[in-house]
Amino acid sequence: MSLAPWRPRLARALHHNRSLVYARYAQLATVRSNGQPANRTVVFRGFLDDTNQLKFITDDRSEKIAQIQAQPWGELCWYFPNSREQFRLLGALTIVQAQHSDAQFVQARQRQWQDLSDAARLQFTWPHPKQPRTDASHFVLPAPNPLEPLPNFCLLLLDPIQVDHLELRGDPQNRCLYDYHSENQSWTIASVHP
Amino acid sequence: MSLAPWRPRLARALHHNRSLVYARYAQLATVRSNGQPANRTVVFRGFLDDTNQLKFITDDRSEKIAQIQAQPWGELCWYFPNSREQFRLLGALTIVQAQHSDAQFVQARQRQWQDLSDAARLQFTWPHPKQPRTDASHFVLPAPNPLEPLPNFCLLLLDPIQVDHLELRGDPQNRCLYDYHSENQSWTIASVHP
Repeated sequence: MSLAPWRPRLARALHHNRSLVYARYAQLATVRSNGQPANRTVVFRGFLDDTNQLKFITDDRSEKIAQIQAQPWGELCWYFPNSREQFRLLGALTIVQAQHSDAQFVQARQRQWQDLSDAARLQFTWPHPKQPRTDASHFVLPAPNPLEPLPNFCLLLLDPIQVDHLELRGDPQNRCLYDYHSENQSWTIASVHP
Repeated sequence: MSLAPWRPRLARALHHNRSLVYARYAQLATVRSNGQPANRTVVFRGFLDDTNQLKFITDDRSEKIAQIQAQPWGELCWYFPNSREQFRLLGALTIVQAQHSDAQFVQARQRQWQDLSDAARLQFTWPHPKQPRTDASHFVLPAPNPLEPLPNFCLLLLDPIQVDHLELRGDPQNRCLYDYHSENQSWTIASVHP
């Protein structure tokens, strides 16, 4: 798979904003079963091997799992404060758990778990999200095995087919649309009005 | 209308992050006509008078207008970097144009236009968003009347019915859900596991 044409622009944005830890945070929109939108902050974990798929992690007890299973499309909105630019990435989402049929994905899930900090791994031992908080929530569980992912740990992949890049610093502003064409596996690029 | 119980928390977050101009930027998710999500950065413009409705502005040539007309629900995801907390606000969206039936909304639209900077008002004279860029895009139009909104200028209101507040700094973390009950016009608050 060749590098998508928006990848160098995103790499440049990450570089120009590398002083801000939260420049790796972005907002992922999905659709609820009742047709209403949902939106939450996720942490970018890099790209999957030599693909153009963005990696995130999540817990299979999170509400977004059922949302994605019913409607596997997501749009990531990523604003970079230092360079004042926004990427909107629309694509299909894939949830990777232990029993996923694709061996490459399962391996990537395992590596992702191993790459996490102890603190990040510990979050997957926490009580069920969005359940009423009890005093028991402060009990300390032993740190999970750093080599073998807990069953509720998921790798989440976003495979963009449309990327909308807006640079607020232009005059007036620069906006560029990237569209993927699956029939010939290529991207088109269009400079448009902001 | 009384102040919703999440308002003081949001006010505190805005105060603690006031050094960052982009702490007033948040991501608004809507749903496209084909059922896929959409997500973009918007600028918080304060609350409407003495209500709990958040104000934004938009251009009636923007794609979100048709999305909201077909599916008027939105979720705003608002991350505050300095205090490391997130608000997710789910609610109904209202688009206010010149001919809106509610006189209070129409007045608010006019005041919003008057409160904008010249540069912000000028954006509403730009060519049609997402149309192919032409050299003509650099022509300079006269500044619009600062008192009377251009027809394509819209006030956008978000009326939250569910607010999910997550503080990453807690131990483990604090998460609080606020739900609005229209039957008795009151909010319930629940402390839940993150």
